[in-house]
Amino acid sequence: MKTTTEFATYKKALIAGFLICISVFAYAEPIMVVGHKNPDSDAIFAAISMAYFKTAQGTPAIAVAQGEPSPETQFALNLFGLQAPRVVHKVAGQNVILVDHNNYAQAPDDLKQAELVGIVDHHSLGGLTSNNPLYVLIEPVGCTNSIIWRLYNEANIAIPPSIAGGMLSAILSDTLVFKSPTTTDLDREAVKSLAAIAKVKDPLKFGEELFLAGEADLKTAAVDTLFKRDFKDFDMNGVKVGVGQLEVYSFNLLKERKGEFLNKMKKLQKEQGYQNLVFMFTDIQSEGTELLVVGKDEDAIGKAFKVSLSNNSAWVEGLMSRKKQLIPALSKVFD
Amino acid sequence: MKTTTEFATYKKALIAGFLICISVFAYAEPIMVVGHKNPDSDAIFAAISMAYFKTAQGTPAIAVAQGEPSPETQFALNLFGLQAPRVVHKVAGQNVILVDHNNYAQAPDDLKQAELVGIVDHHSLGGLTSNNPLYVLIEPVGCTNSIIWRLYNEANIAIPPSIAGGMLSAILSDTLVFKSPTTTDLDREAVKSLAAIAKVKDPLKFGEELFLAGEADLKTAAVDTLFKRDFKDFDMNGVKVGVGQLEVYSFNLLKERKGEFLNKMKKLQKEQGYQNLVFMFTDIQSEGTELLVVGKDEDAIGKAFKVSLSNNSAWVEGLMSRKKQLIPALSKVFD
Repeated sequence: MKTTTEFATYKKALIAGFLICISVFAYAEPIMVVGHKNPDSDAIFAAISMAYFKTAQGTPAIAVAQGEPSPETQFALNLFGLQAPRVVHKVAGQNVILVDHNNYAQAPDDLKQAELVGIVDHHSLGGLTSNNPLYVLIEPVGCTNSIIWRLYNEANIAIPPSIAGGMLSAILSDTLVFKSPTTTDLDREAVKSLAAIAKVKDPLKFGEELFLAGEADLKTAAVDTLFKRDFKDFDMNGVKVGVGQLEVYSFNLLKERKGEFLNKMKKLQKEQGYQNLVFMFTDIQSEGTELLVVGKDEDAIGKAFKVSLSNNSAWVEGLMSRKKQLIPALSKVFD
Repeated sequence: MKTTTEFATYKKALIAGFLICISVFAYAEPIMVVGHKNPDSDAIFAAISMAYFKTAQGTPAIAVAQGEPSPETQFALNLFGLQAPRVVHKVAGQNVILVDHNNYAQAPDDLKQAELVGIVDHHSLGGLTSNNPLYVLIEPVGCTNSIIWRLYNEANIAIPPSIAGGMLSAILSDTLVFKSPTTTDLDREAVKSLAAIAKVKDPLKFGEELFLAGEADLKTAAVDTLFKRDFKDFDMNGVKVGVGQLEVYSFNLLKERKGEFLNKMKKLQKEQGYQNLVFMFTDIQSEGTELLVVGKDEDAIGKAFKVSLSNNSAWVEGLMSRKKQLIPALSKVFD
């Protein structure tokens, strides 16, 4: 009889222990904060700044990334003493916050097997669905980190100088040091405030240094490396379009590699079923873009920007932003 | 010579006048703020409160609605001296802000021909896309008007007492006078603040009056009228599911009409290609729902709520919220 009672007690204790274990584990499982594929500085630093913000608010979160940082991002990580987020390609079963994107093409492939709990972004709406109500904040500003900067302010949470440096880098990068037409007052305010926290005296000069660090390998890097540095897939009314962009101060160095880029694009189009591939060589100083186009709709795409392509390319004066200028015009072609 | 010069001057003046006319017209065209089809109190009052908010911020906006107000909403409109928004079914060519929904099924049918410039909502993500970056604010709270209340606060814009009364009504309605599990601290704070502005002394008592006013016609209204009062279409992985809900204090009166509702549902299923139709008779006082189910997946839907249906219906204890409880469980059935 005693043995039976003892056994029952053990069993209860065992079950209780097991339940506590599960609940602690479930509680401790942090939210994954992740930027888009081929992460740029905003994708990396928005993951870092948002994860820190959620954790400071009492909800444990960790920054992860869908790829290694670019040289530009690595320069900023080193300068401000931050670690690159762990590279992760699977999020199934996790709670996930997406930053700097809001569509399936740029999210982790198994996103539908995860629980999407939040989005902070500055792009057009990309057609995601969720089973449960969630937190979404999307604003038409220059950079995701400007929105996150305001979230810190509203919640009265201090931004550590290292993270402020990363956020500053992301905003200067995304707004092309304020030359992009996507730049808003919020981005300018955020840069001013973050530069003070990160002790960066001349943010505009720092922005140029950041870009030059990022393009130091323009002459030597393999074309594949440069090509995928900021390359995104878009589904435009069922049409698969890939759009890459490099925004540089050393425009002439980049232009010398145009032939290699076009060959790469022709190869990709054949092998991976793209209906069109577009690449933007954006000259930050002259404020325009050499547009490279390979695909079935070359003429229509040229027309959308009022240029006629010669050898698959044309200079488009004033074209700086993929998000605000190129994608809306391109979407209309496939409407 | 003089005539030619004069003509040139006239021509210039004419063109200038024409351009000014166009730009004034374009500037004066207000944003349309619209809630979902079969508007409930939140859909109507969120359109009114958001339109006033945008206008106060310097961007002219008008509230419109995809249908006439329900008796509950009309009671609140009368009580606080507000006009029902103009009924509109076409938004093509307009700038549009959606409130209290974010999917194509519940939006105006021609939304894709409009320019979607904003969304304020509290539902799960519904798969909308936009050509341009826009403003989106979605939060997992009890009512859209609670979010809009916070926007007013953050922007330091005073809420007129009449609009505060409408917003208060919407929050009490959506949260079932705080009995719905969707209720959050934000909803409670908003009710406290809005009741003070609208000079409503006992918001909980007012909530009950609001519901009783809304259900005064439960005995007499045509079943069609009651049925479509809060009925929404959902696309669940390609499966068309219609889900209606009535949340009442007079539960016994409603239950007497169950047979009529089931007949209506069987007819609708045959005629309009629904794979399943679900209707929730929610008893606010007992905190549970009589679930009516007609369709191909009756057994699976019953199982999802751990009940077995008898005569196409079953009581589900604790089920109060379509958004937070029913839709997530139903979505899993069709995953």
